[in-house]
Amino acid sequence: MKKKVVVIGGGTGTYTVLLGLKKYPLELSAIISMMDSGGSNRVLRDEFGLLPTSDLRQCMVALASPESHEILRKLFTYRFSQGTGISGMTFGNLFMAALTDIYGSQEEAITKTCEILDVKGQIIPVTYDDTHLIARYDNGEQVLGEHFIDEPKKENGKHKIIELELIPKAKANKKALQAIKEADLIVLGPGDLYTSIICNLLVEGLSEAIKKSKAKKVYVLNLMTNFGQTTNYTAKDHLADLEKYLGKGVVDTIVVNKNQKFPPSILKRYKEEKAFLVKDDLEKNKDFKVVRKDLVCCDKVYFKTQSDKLKRSLIRHDSDKLAKTLIKLL
Amino acid sequence: MKKKVVVIGGGTGTYTVLLGLKKYPLELSAIISMMDSGGSNRVLRDEFGLLPTSDLRQCMVALASPESHEILRKLFTYRFSQGTGISGMTFGNLFMAALTDIYGSQEEAITKTCEILDVKGQIIPVTYDDTHLIARYDNGEQVLGEHFIDEPKKENGKHKIIELELIPKAKANKKALQAIKEADLIVLGPGDLYTSIICNLLVEGLSEAIKKSKAKKVYVLNLMTNFGQTTNYTAKDHLADLEKYLGKGVVDTIVVNKNQKFPPSILKRYKEEKAFLVKDDLEKNKDFKVVRKDLVCCDKVYFKTQSDKLKRSLIRHDSDKLAKTLIKLL
Repeated sequence: MKKKVVVIGGGTGTYTVLLGLKKYPLELSAIISMMDSGGSNRVLRDEFGLLPTSDLRQCMVALASPESHEILRKLFTYRFSQGTGISGMTFGNLFMAALTDIYGSQEEAITKTCEILDVKGQIIPVTYDDTHLIARYDNGEQVLGEHFIDEPKKENGKHKIIELELIPKAKANKKALQAIKEADLIVLGPGDLYTSIICNLLVEGLSEAIKKSKAKKVYVLNLMTNFGQTTNYTAKDHLADLEKYLGKGVVDTIVVNKNQKFPPSILKRYKEEKAFLVKDDLEKNKDFKVVRKDLVCCDKVYFKTQSDKLKRSLIRHDSDKLAKTLIKLL
Repeated sequence: MKKKVVVIGGGTGTYTVLLGLKKYPLELSAIISMMDSGGSNRVLRDEFGLLPTSDLRQCMVALASPESHEILRKLFTYRFSQGTGISGMTFGNLFMAALTDIYGSQEEAITKTCEILDVKGQIIPVTYDDTHLIARYDNGEQVLGEHFIDEPKKENGKHKIIELELIPKAKANKKALQAIKEADLIVLGPGDLYTSIICNLLVEGLSEAIKKSKAKKVYVLNLMTNFGQTTNYTAKDHLADLEKYLGKGVVDTIVVNKNQKFPPSILKRYKEEKAFLVKDDLEKNKDFKVVRKDLVCCDKVYFKTQSDKLKRSLIRHDSDKLAKTLIKLL
C-alpha cells in the first residue's frame, strides 16, 4: 500500500515540497492555507466575495500530471500585466472564479480545476470559512490581513509577533482532519512561519489532529529569516514559535540545510530586505532528531517577475533534494 | 475525399451554421470577422493592444470536439459579472490574451486555443490587420466602430448605410484566400448584414477570391431585420446590399426561412427593438435559385443573459435544419 504523506502550508515552499514528492509513489495530500489577502486574492475576496485561491493554484500546478495540457499549466502560472482592473490578476484565480459562478460553489470549482489539470493527489483547503489573520506584536501593535503581516511597514518589521489569531474563528475542512489522521508522514514547511505555516494551525481542530496522528511529524526549517515574521530568528526561535501553536514535542524531526555557501551578491540582495541565513543552533536532545543535508540548488535561482506585484524569494530549496530527504524518513 | 465548406461571417449566425455543419463529414473552414470593437473586445483592443477575438471564440466553441473538456467549453462561453475592470470580460478573450503574452503572438495563441479545445476544422481570422469599420449613412453622417454601427443611436438607426469601409485598409489572411479557392461550398450568413457579413468582404482580396472560386455560393437570409443595418429591408434589399460589395450574380443560391409563424410575444419584443420579419420578395429569375425551408426551431428561444452587456437575438435558425438544407446544395 502506498504511504500517505500530508504537506501542510501554502506558498512557494509547499510548491517546492510537492514538486519533489510527486515523483514518488505516494498518496499525497496538500493542506493549504486560505488566509491570503493581497494582490489577486484581495480582488477575489473583496470584489467576487470568494475565498483566496492563489496558494491552492500554485499547489495544483505542482501536482498537475505531466500528461495534462502544457498550455493549461502555463496559463495557471500566468499573471496579467495589462488591462485596467485585470493587471496583477492571476489567470488561475480568474479560472476558478469563473468556475465558481458556473458550478455554484467554490468547492466544486476547486474539484473541477484539479480534474482539468489532472492533479495527482489531494488539494485540501485548510478551511472553507472566510477568515483573516490578525498579528499582535511586542510593541502592542495589531495588524489585520495576511499581506500586511507578510509585507510589514518598516517600523513593524523589527517587532516580534507575540500572537497570531484568526478573525473570525474558522473550522477545519473535514478532509484535512481525515488526511492528517491517516498520514504516515506530515511535513510542515518550508515557508513563511506565520503566514504560511502557523496560520493553518490556528484553524480549529488542526493542531489537535496533528498531535493525535501517528504520523512522523517533520518540520523543514527555512533557509532565510523573513523580516517581520522571523526577524533575526535562529533555528531554535523558529521551533519555539511553531511549538507555541502546535504543542511542545509534537515535531519529531527537523530538516535543516547544511551547506550555507551562497553567492555574496544574492546574500547582499537579501540583506537589503533585512533577511539573513537562519543560524542552526539546534542541539542534540531527546525530543527531536535533526537531519542536516545539502538541500539547496544554486542553479535554480529565482527572479522576481515584473508583472508580479508580490515579492518572491531568490534562494530556494531544491525540490528533488528535499523530497529525497523526506522520503528517507518514511 | 471530403467536401470543403467555407463559412464566412462572425457572431451568432455563423456559430449556428458551424454547429450544424460540424456533424457532417466535411472539411470545414470558418472565415471570421475581426472588426468588433465593443464590450470585451474594446478592452482587448484598447488596453491589451490585441485584435478582437469574441467572434473567433464563439466559433471555436461551435467547432470544439465533443471529446474536449466540457469545463473548458463552458468557460469559453462565460462572461464575468463581477470585479472592477473584469465584469463584462469574456473568459475566452482573457484566455487568448494570456496565451498571446505567453507565446508571443496572437496567431499562435489562436492556434493553441484551437488545439486545447480540439477544434474540428479551421478557424481563420479574415485578417490579422488592426482595422475598424466606418459606416456612411444617407443623411451624411459617418460612424466609426463596429459596436456603434451595431447598436446605433435612435436617430441613426432609421438611416440607410450607403457605404461601409475599413479604416485603415486591411489585407486578407492568406489562409482565408486559400480556403475560398479550394471550397466546394461557400456560405455567407446568416448574421448582421454589415457588421458580420459585408465587413469581411471589405478585406482586400476577399470578394475577388469568392468571385473566382468554383464553389457554390450560398447566402442565408436573416430571419429578422436589424434596426440600423437593415431597417425595413426586404429579402431583395439584403441581396442588393450584399451584391454591392460582392458583385452582382456571385451568389447562386439564397436560403430562406419559409415558416414565419412566431409567438406574438416574441415578435412584440422585437418590435420594441424596431426589428421585423424579413419579407420574402425574391422572384424567380436566372441569376440565383431560392431554397425555401422551415429553418427555425421555436423551442430553442434564446434569452439575453444578465451579465452580457450586448444584446442577443431571440429568434434563431435551427442549426440542424439549416445544415441539412446546406448539405443538400453540395
